[in-house]
Amino acid sequence: MGTADHVDPYYSGATAGHRVEIPPRQPFSTSLKNTLKETFFPDDPLRQFKNQPPRRRLLLGLQYVFPIIEWGRHYTLGFFKADLIAGITIASLAIPQGISYAKLANLPPILGLYSSFVPPLIYAIMGSSRDLAVGTVAVASLLTAAMLGEVVDPQQDPQLYLHLAFTATFFAGLFEAAMGIFRLGFIVDFLSHATIVGFMAGAATVVILQQLKGVLGLEHFTHKTDVIDVLHSIFTQTHEWRWESALLGFVFLFYLLISKYFSKKRPNLFWVSAMAPLTSVILGSILVYLTHAEKHGVQVIGHLKKGINPPSFMDLNFDSRYLPTAIKTGIITGIISMAEGMAVGRSFAMFKNYHIDGNKEMIAFGMMNIVGSCTSCYLTTGPFSRSAVNFNAGCKTAVSNIVMAVAVMATLLFLTPLFHYTPLVVLAAIIVAAMLGLIDYEAAMHLWHVDKFDFLVCMAAYVGVVFGSIQIGLMLAIGLSIIRVLLFVARPRTLVLGNLPGSKEYRNIDHYEKAQSIPGVLILEIDAPIYFANSNYLRERIIRWIDEEEERIKASGEAGLQYVVLDMSAVGNIDTSGISMMDEIKKIIDRRGLKLVVVNPVAEVMKKLDKSKFLETLGQEWIFLTIGEAVGACNYMLHTCKPQDSEKYSNNV
Amino acid sequence: MGTADHVDPYYSGATAGHRVEIPPRQPFSTSLKNTLKETFFPDDPLRQFKNQPPRRRLLLGLQYVFPIIEWGRHYTLGFFKADLIAGITIASLAIPQGISYAKLANLPPILGLYSSFVPPLIYAIMGSSRDLAVGTVAVASLLTAAMLGEVVDPQQDPQLYLHLAFTATFFAGLFEAAMGIFRLGFIVDFLSHATIVGFMAGAATVVILQQLKGVLGLEHFTHKTDVIDVLHSIFTQTHEWRWESALLGFVFLFYLLISKYFSKKRPNLFWVSAMAPLTSVILGSILVYLTHAEKHGVQVIGHLKKGINPPSFMDLNFDSRYLPTAIKTGIITGIISMAEGMAVGRSFAMFKNYHIDGNKEMIAFGMMNIVGSCTSCYLTTGPFSRSAVNFNAGCKTAVSNIVMAVAVMATLLFLTPLFHYTPLVVLAAIIVAAMLGLIDYEAAMHLWHVDKFDFLVCMAAYVGVVFGSIQIGLMLAIGLSIIRVLLFVARPRTLVLGNLPGSKEYRNIDHYEKAQSIPGVLILEIDAPIYFANSNYLRERIIRWIDEEEERIKASGEAGLQYVVLDMSAVGNIDTSGISMMDEIKKIIDRRGLKLVVVNPVAEVMKKLDKSKFLETLGQEWIFLTIGEAVGACNYMLHTCKPQDSEKYSNNV
Repeated sequence: MGTADHVDPYYSGATAGHRVEIPPRQPFSTSLKNTLKETFFPDDPLRQFKNQPPRRRLLLGLQYVFPIIEWGRHYTLGFFKADLIAGITIASLAIPQGISYAKLANLPPILGLYSSFVPPLIYAIMGSSRDLAVGTVAVASLLTAAMLGEVVDPQQDPQLYLHLAFTATFFAGLFEAAMGIFRLGFIVDFLSHATIVGFMAGAATVVILQQLKGVLGLEHFTHKTDVIDVLHSIFTQTHEWRWESALLGFVFLFYLLISKYFSKKRPNLFWVSAMAPLTSVILGSILVYLTHAEKHGVQVIGHLKKGINPPSFMDLNFDSRYLPTAIKTGIITGIISMAEGMAVGRSFAMFKNYHIDGNKEMIAFGMMNIVGSCTSCYLTTGPFSRSAVNFNAGCKTAVSNIVMAVAVMATLLFLTPLFHYTPLVVLAAIIVAAMLGLIDYEAAMHLWHVDKFDFLVCMAAYVGVVFGSIQIGLMLAIGLSIIRVLLFVARPRTLVLGNLPGSKEYRNIDHYEKAQSIPGVLILEIDAPIYFANSNYLRERIIRWIDEEEERIKASGEAGLQYVVLDMSAVGNIDTSGISMMDEIKKIIDRRGLKLVVVNPVAEVMKKLDKSKFLETLGQEWIFLTIGEAVGACNYMLHTCKPQDSEKYSNNV
Repeated sequence: MGTADHVDPYYSGATAGHRVEIPPRQPFSTSLKNTLKETFFPDDPLRQFKNQPPRRRLLLGLQYVFPIIEWGRHYTLGFFKADLIAGITIASLAIPQGISYAKLANLPPILGLYSSFVPPLIYAIMGSSRDLAVGTVAVASLLTAAMLGEVVDPQQDPQLYLHLAFTATFFAGLFEAAMGIFRLGFIVDFLSHATIVGFMAGAATVVILQQLKGVLGLEHFTHKTDVIDVLHSIFTQTHEWRWESALLGFVFLFYLLISKYFSKKRPNLFWVSAMAPLTSVILGSILVYLTHAEKHGVQVIGHLKKGINPPSFMDLNFDSRYLPTAIKTGIITGIISMAEGMAVGRSFAMFKNYHIDGNKEMIAFGMMNIVGSCTSCYLTTGPFSRSAVNFNAGCKTAVSNIVMAVAVMATLLFLTPLFHYTPLVVLAAIIVAAMLGLIDYEAAMHLWHVDKFDFLVCMAAYVGVVFGSIQIGLMLAIGLSIIRVLLFVARPRTLVLGNLPGSKEYRNIDHYEKAQSIPGVLILEIDAPIYFANSNYLRERIIRWIDEEEERIKASGEAGLQYVVLDMSAVGNIDTSGISMMDEIKKIIDRRGLKLVVVNPVAEVMKKLDKSKFLETLGQEWIFLTIGEAVGACNYMLHTCKPQDSEKYSNNV
């Protein structure tokens, strides 16, 4: 790094006499209101209500809660044709998937169908996505089984287990709706992309491992989900493996994967893969019916009750012995499935260029689960796979959900006996095929490539889920993500700036090789808010920069260091610990016979420096709007006055 | 806000053709090494070892661990005279305070003397502060009593209780030393100034309330520390109040406070207040001896064993039943007392302009407590009150600690019988007088004045300690502090910038009233790293800025919006969620027929934007070094080409 020969003349007029202003004082109530607004209402949802007559406000309000009122008015026959095709397509996927996931949650298979009937109707009325297809999801199903299974055995007390599942769903809905109403949507944001990639892949691995029970036809199986317990359970029971079952399973898995592969190659063949689960179920059922394989170790679904959802309002169980488990299960499964649904809705909205209000969506998800829990449904959200099929099938509005619900209703009323001979192993194959799509190793590679820490978070979630439990994996990943944010604040970067030759700009000398330092002036930039968590570090680090600069100068025989310029443009905020740090830095720099110069504090920082009297200590004349100006002033002093004159000079500005 | 008439000509040469560079690629190992170094070795402690012969390195290494080797060589008789006076002064404070605090911890009073003998000697050898006076502290003593009292009753099983206190001290030392060795000193930084002010005031309130037992001469007292339980315990036993005891207590309290007041008014009278506790003890003991008040409800210390510290190495109790409590107590009391000691050491070092190495200090504190736990001492640190007396008495080096230790040793060997008649109520008065100094309501007012959130944190700590427990208050305050950091990252400010007339600078239009917006160009600044926690928010917020700007333009009939300039100077880092957000923003802006322009990404951000191919998507020609240049380019396009030409143009740059 060289030193610039050309320096700007002092006060070159670059900023035409502008100075850093102390921002106009706001009453505390105003700034509190602004902060609360930005924290909880960043999307300003009430803007459209402004300056409207009461009648119009009522309509807008109703539209806000029930978006169907808005889009329903413009609904056309053309839309309906598209929605009809999409709705039938997703129904053909929803029926076998619903039954499979209900089995995964250790719930009666019929619940999977119930859950594809009522919740989609609620969502069609309240939801704001046009592409989301509502249904149950594998991860939340497994999580329900794992968490409720800790207090109630689903085999020994299926009634109680079922009621707790409804109760957990009720609390999940309540929690989701509350988050929407209290505008706490940003809690979901703490599940980062990296966390979700790792967590989903881990959960998919765990779900696939669980399916080995069905594929191998095992009767006994571990209740734990970690890979070691599962593999131990499988390989200690090799004598119970059923080859008929395994063969059937792998044949159907192959069929499902090959159809998926074709659909991926040719997007207009999406229906091949969308219909594959239903055709698997039909083929499997016919095969078992003809060969009586159910008597040779191939387990089947058995009897399914005819008729639509019975009410389950009275089944909600608020017994204090089980309440903590139900609430905990509800909150965790609710937040995870909601995160998936929100991400899915947002992606498709982006694709089709319409807007989704996150908090409104949460209320819709919440209501759908609250109503669901009273009508024999368990946790539903907007699963990615089903929504993607819906989108590819050309859905136009949430009417495709209504079509799906009607198709499922027809199934419930008339077709349930047909599922009697459906082999469980086909359901397992359907789950495995769906889960393989969740293991997104390309995304993980991308993380590794772009951001190593994100990759670490992702792997922590994966390893935690696979070797520990779903909860452990999630905790690990969220914990690491938060530690990352805290570390960013605890260890901000301080950069040494230099002049870009021939310009008035100053940039990091590590980034811009051409940037040149100014003799006698050390220019530092802090790129984070100055908070209690980093004020000690920053003091040490700044002193170390000064030490190193002085050593360098001593070694090179240049003119001694006179000024330390602190560029605060990137310091977004400061707290009282930070202000104490600034005071200390000022004292230390003074005691070394140097001069502290501050550049461009933002409004918030300027306000606090003023209130805490730091401005008086520093002297307002030592605050400059740009680095160029500050350096100009320093050079003027260096070349015209002796250091001890600087006090005198500064009083005259 | 008006609009600037004068605009800079395109490429005015302000940056002489400099462009934002993609920083030179570093191997992963280098960047990992740098990150680890900045995280764990920000002070670069090994710098002095570089380029030194092995012999010199050994000496430097020994000096690093035992700073006495360094300063001991320059020790003079003049220093010793000063240290002698200071040492005797702090000994006269240490003896009564030690006994009082040991009573507060429900430990035998003699432990207070033991703890002022061995630990100061260890600190004198290993510590790097010249002003710290070592001893026990009230808050940690009370905390020990509260935490150990939950599992062992000090009245029923004093032996076990004592051994657990040693064990907790051992773990406190181990934890402190480990934090120093593993360079985790920054954990202490998460105790913000505001937290400490609130916590200390709360703890002092609680300690004072506890003293009412001694002052009123009550026999029975609650084990809880919250204000409601304590007041209930006091006012349900009004019949047991002893007026003799209370009178004595208030007289001595008055004496102590008045002497403190005088010393504050005249700093050269520091010894009046420093000697006051010892004179109180002497006067009180003589009074009791003469009046036989111990037979009229004035409790006295009673018999104190003669002789120096017996070894307690064999008393450490690692029984698994008590181990978790011992470890927890050790860690919490260790970290809190260490935070006090570090802050005290740092303040005086700043005052006298010498440097303290935080991690080294932690090792010294840790060793002092490990050795202390094996020699019948309980938790010690550098208390503020005692160190302030040491400083005022003119201490020069840690030799004053040695003098104090020798004085305490003499007391232990010869003078313990003199404390037989010392009334407990005098000890209570000494504690109350010391604690009143910890309630720093001026600091709290300062917090309110400068930073409302810091005040909230402070009050949370206070209320939590006083109405809940010490642990609850601490958790509350640390939790709030961390939430504040997370909220800062989750809800960064986005600022609209405008041109300062007559200059090339752009500043926040809310801060600088003169700043003028540029027609057709919206300039936004983001002032935080773009992370998973804020990427959703930022997308919403940026879109809302664009919406609002378009509405404003529509209302005012100006030329339509064409460019969105994003100033990323203050974005210190970005993760993969943030990059996805940038991609989305780009798509949304494109779809609206606008153009995204990015200004001045820092090295770290530029690197990741490059790796993730965002630079290709955006087009490198849309990245500018300064806002002025970006606006110049936008204006050039606005005035010379039609919008649809911009693609063509940008390819030619």
